[in-house]
Amino acid sequence: MLSLHSDTSPRWLEQVDANLPEILIDHAHCEKKAAGVAMNLIFAYVENEPLCREMSVIVKEELEHFEMVLDLLQRRGIRFRRLKPSSYGRQLIELVSKQEPLRAVDRLLVAGLIEARSCERFALLRDHLESKDRELSDFFGGLFESEARHHSTYVQLARQFADDAQVESRLQALAEEEAAIIARGDELPRVHS
Amino acid sequence: MLSLHSDTSPRWLEQVDANLPEILIDHAHCEKKAAGVAMNLIFAYVENEPLCREMSVIVKEELEHFEMVLDLLQRRGIRFRRLKPSSYGRQLIELVSKQEPLRAVDRLLVAGLIEARSCERFALLRDHLESKDRELSDFFGGLFESEARHHSTYVQLARQFADDAQVESRLQALAEEEAAIIARGDELPRVHS
Repeated sequence: MLSLHSDTSPRWLEQVDANLPEILIDHAHCEKKAAGVAMNLIFAYVENEPLCREMSVIVKEELEHFEMVLDLLQRRGIRFRRLKPSSYGRQLIELVSKQEPLRAVDRLLVAGLIEARSCERFALLRDHLESKDRELSDFFGGLFESEARHHSTYVQLARQFADDAQVESRLQALAEEEAAIIARGDELPRVHS
Repeated sequence: MLSLHSDTSPRWLEQVDANLPEILIDHAHCEKKAAGVAMNLIFAYVENEPLCREMSVIVKEELEHFEMVLDLLQRRGIRFRRLKPSSYGRQLIELVSKQEPLRAVDRLLVAGLIEARSCERFALLRDHLESKDRELSDFFGGLFESEARHHSTYVQLARQFADDAQVESRLQALAEEEAAIIARGDELPRVHS
């Protein structure tokens, strides 16, 4: 699904059930970080106008989602607070090449894979919570489509920096690593643990 | 006007007339940087929910403006490119305290003063260009109101980190410095030269 090399294990849904408020707080941070990643790409590749325009749209959408999660936390009386992040993002960023133009390809593909994993997990949450918590199930179902769209945008933009075969082979390699990071998991209950 | 301690001198409008395409390119960068500043404030003060919500709105508006300036450049056949920034922003950032909570106050007030100066200059451009370039005059007139609103938002938020008297005295001190930076000017033709 969406370039991912693995499905989320049932272990993660157990983590979610045992720590739902913490997962929701982390979700707000994830939307904020997704907006930050897209903003950083505007600053890094500001002369690439198609990229800037796509990133501008993504920043705005991620911030809409950030505000939506803050609203949800407020309705449920969960105080938004700082959280130690899972190691997922840091481990992925370590895989990014230091050399341009491969660096641009990697940054875009890593962002695309994070969107893909969020998308896969939001679909899982939508189904898992359908009978237990309809509001939350609908909420994650509503985010599913934009995460899938962002994934495609990132992969498409990577093709501006390398030919299709290079992008495809790099996407497969990074997806393999991403699946390994997800398989190792994280003790902290997080969206990407 | 809007806490500013000086009016822009006619010298700046001469710079604008002689370098309009470069000023418009710099304007796109200014909108992008304004979005970046608001985003950085979300990351720095993420547990301050009212601040995060206001900054989220500002990031989205600044990016809308960024896209509008890119559209304008495209219509006029001006290629968007990197530009050496004026020294204005850097000189203001050097005034920001290293110690919290004064650091938060200063970051917000400096952001508010930059919005105020943009607001003052957009009003000048609106009037100056009215007979020469109606599209551009309307464009700057349309941005005027949101810059004024952002100025107020930043000053209001600073009051969360210090009492009103402290904020007011710091605003006056920073506005004095800002007026001195503007009076020294910059050889580069820029929105804040």
